[in-house]
Amino acid sequence: MRHEQSSELIIKNLRVYVLNQPGYFASLLTIISNFGVNIGDVKLLKRADQSNIREVEMHLAYPGQEEEVISAIKELEGIEFDSILDPVLEIHKGGKIEMCNRVSINTPGDIRSIYTPGVAEVCRLIQKNPEAAKEYTSIANTVAIITNGTAILGLGDIGPVAGMPVMEGKAVLFKHLVGISGIPILIDEKEPQKIIDTIVRIAPTFGAIKLEDFKAPECFEIERALEEKLTMPVMHDDQHGTATVTLAALLSVAEYTQRNLHESVIGLIGLGAAGTGIARLLLSFGAKSILGADIDEGAKKRIASMGATPSDINEIMKSADIVIATTGVPGLIAPDMIRPAQVILALSNPNPEILPQQALAAGASFAADGRGVNNALAFPGLFRGALNAGAIRFTDAMKIAAAQAIAAKANREHKELVPALLNPEVHKAVTEAVERASHA
Amino acid sequence: MRHEQSSELIIKNLRVYVLNQPGYFASLLTIISNFGVNIGDVKLLKRADQSNIREVEMHLAYPGQEEEVISAIKELEGIEFDSILDPVLEIHKGGKIEMCNRVSINTPGDIRSIYTPGVAEVCRLIQKNPEAAKEYTSIANTVAIITNGTAILGLGDIGPVAGMPVMEGKAVLFKHLVGISGIPILIDEKEPQKIIDTIVRIAPTFGAIKLEDFKAPECFEIERALEEKLTMPVMHDDQHGTATVTLAALLSVAEYTQRNLHESVIGLIGLGAAGTGIARLLLSFGAKSILGADIDEGAKKRIASMGATPSDINEIMKSADIVIATTGVPGLIAPDMIRPAQVILALSNPNPEILPQQALAAGASFAADGRGVNNALAFPGLFRGALNAGAIRFTDAMKIAAAQAIAAKANREHKELVPALLNPEVHKAVTEAVERASHA
Repeated sequence: MRHEQSSELIIKNLRVYVLNQPGYFASLLTIISNFGVNIGDVKLLKRADQSNIREVEMHLAYPGQEEEVISAIKELEGIEFDSILDPVLEIHKGGKIEMCNRVSINTPGDIRSIYTPGVAEVCRLIQKNPEAAKEYTSIANTVAIITNGTAILGLGDIGPVAGMPVMEGKAVLFKHLVGISGIPILIDEKEPQKIIDTIVRIAPTFGAIKLEDFKAPECFEIERALEEKLTMPVMHDDQHGTATVTLAALLSVAEYTQRNLHESVIGLIGLGAAGTGIARLLLSFGAKSILGADIDEGAKKRIASMGATPSDINEIMKSADIVIATTGVPGLIAPDMIRPAQVILALSNPNPEILPQQALAAGASFAADGRGVNNALAFPGLFRGALNAGAIRFTDAMKIAAAQAIAAKANREHKELVPALLNPEVHKAVTEAVERASHA
Repeated sequence: MRHEQSSELIIKNLRVYVLNQPGYFASLLTIISNFGVNIGDVKLLKRADQSNIREVEMHLAYPGQEEEVISAIKELEGIEFDSILDPVLEIHKGGKIEMCNRVSINTPGDIRSIYTPGVAEVCRLIQKNPEAAKEYTSIANTVAIITNGTAILGLGDIGPVAGMPVMEGKAVLFKHLVGISGIPILIDEKEPQKIIDTIVRIAPTFGAIKLEDFKAPECFEIERALEEKLTMPVMHDDQHGTATVTLAALLSVAEYTQRNLHESVIGLIGLGAAGTGIARLLLSFGAKSILGADIDEGAKKRIASMGATPSDINEIMKSADIVIATTGVPGLIAPDMIRPAQVILALSNPNPEILPQQALAAGASFAADGRGVNNALAFPGLFRGALNAGAIRFTDAMKIAAAQAIAAKANREHKELVPALLNPEVHKAVTEAVERASHA
């Protein structure tokens, strides 16, 4: 029970030999369940006369719990421990992405067309007419996914290489959801000007730039400078992807509660990249009463200059109709802080400020975490739409259009705030909405 | 005849309506042939009572020749011009590469494993143990293909974006030949120190760095600095890939002519990246008599400091047993400059200093151009072997091992200097040789 706060899913697969007689298998499952471990799939790997080999998927409550389970299993009669497998690590082996060919190579003639000497013709064409690069190279379908590793998920400054699994995950979603070729770029540098210089120099490789998990406040300076210097869409996802999907959730809330967002009191707990991006977009959308709390006074000044009101967490919990937490602090919101009918979006990943089910039990009318209200609902269509339109920047109109498209796909009957991430209709709708808004 | 020097293959497909009566189709082909245009495939696209639609693949002798052909065709009775298609441009549409997924996404469970929250476990593991990135990310199988566009093929400084089709072509070969994920990076910058800084900052993204088509002399400084600063294999392909495959060709020549390379007079015409790289590797291999010519005095001083002898083109043509030209100047070597039994490697792409058939007709014992003696025989296995071995740099021993492996795969019966590029055995042999040599 000591780790009940954690919502992080830890999956380990247990491999054991189980004596092939009645009762032994059941005793194994009982022991595991007694630890509070949920059991997923159970596979019979090998059937034998003496003992069967079984693999049991265990959903652990906290890191290291598997060792306690193993100790207990080793005491059991008729059960022999074999090994523990980690399916998440398994799927990450060798990485999640790779560069692939869109052309086939079978003959020397193919080489002459795609490489030398044929390729020279394409090079010369682009030299004469740089616009031709959009048609005859991969650039216009390619988005850089750039991080310096200073704010990876809610894990903090873990460095760019440790952030790579997240960048690859974004590339996987780009490809799967909207067919964009996403290229992770890890930058080993913390000084904003050097980061800006680096990105500007490599920018011609890409059709757009997605900044990812740069910490605040540096992320603001970096994004602003890149938007000024580059004539291509640039977006810090933690600010604007999060803001877009948050606005989508609030549009749903407004519909379910028959409340006007412009008149609601919206409280932001945490004013890093996400909180600041949310404040900015909500103000642009027309929200009038936004309170913001952060331990950093500079962050509060920043949102004050935008038109929001500096506040503190207690005041927000007491007065806000809608609370949006993006602090990276698991368990920050205790159930007894929640007022009846409050809307609670606790968006920090991998562990939220309060679990949705806890918030609902404490009286919240709607509650969600960052797994549901996830920027992966927004960024694929935002970039796809911008690339399709040949846009040179992201505007608030494009983000608001994306939010409306996301909200429109939420299941009204089930009172969903946002639709499921893997619903392909969502990303198509966002793409089209963004494309239209970019022309407006 | 004015363009007979060009060996560049220009393919255009002609679409025409041809009256469906005897003689008209033949007259069309005759007219085309009269222009000195070779005819490749001829396809019947649509059969009709009145006229057939045919597509004729034309191998043109020089750019723009198709317009002369079209004019003549328009005068023909029974033939109606429809359109000209460019199959090289067709194959380049949308680019030649794209980022793909190595994992499948079907269920929310898949999202939890490859993205949030599951990915956090992998991030933490890498944070604790950076070596784990080799196993659980794509980094160790990824090579950056970096250019600033200052020396693209023999086309010169056409800029990084116009160089993209070449970079994509290299990525295609990487993937097809050795399964490496190649990531083109275009750098819009000419100042070496800024290029070095940029590459050092993004280097953690990659397992190795392939520098491509940077002009001399900046390429030397850039490569040297990166080798000093990075603990991963770095190679300027125009120097060392070319040098490796050139050494392979010379090893074959030595065998066919029963001549010892150490005692041969080897003349290098052109001392840019390729010529300098060749001089360096031949000296390291043990060649004692290397002459080098270039219009740039600095280039001659550079090879003198390495132990080669500055010379000029006329002296080289008069005294060298083996002539290696890497000038980027098509037609620089006139047939009457060639001495009997000389070996002529005219390696500039897309157009060599002299066509191999011309050199042979003028008395050369062996002749090849850059399409045959192409660094694409070397670089895939060099990088694959280095990555497999976990090498932190390329050594001359690795390049020499690669050259020997390439030469060993040349068909001795046909007196090949090097094997065919698409022979998968070659790249496997090079990989293994490089891996072994890196451990030595």
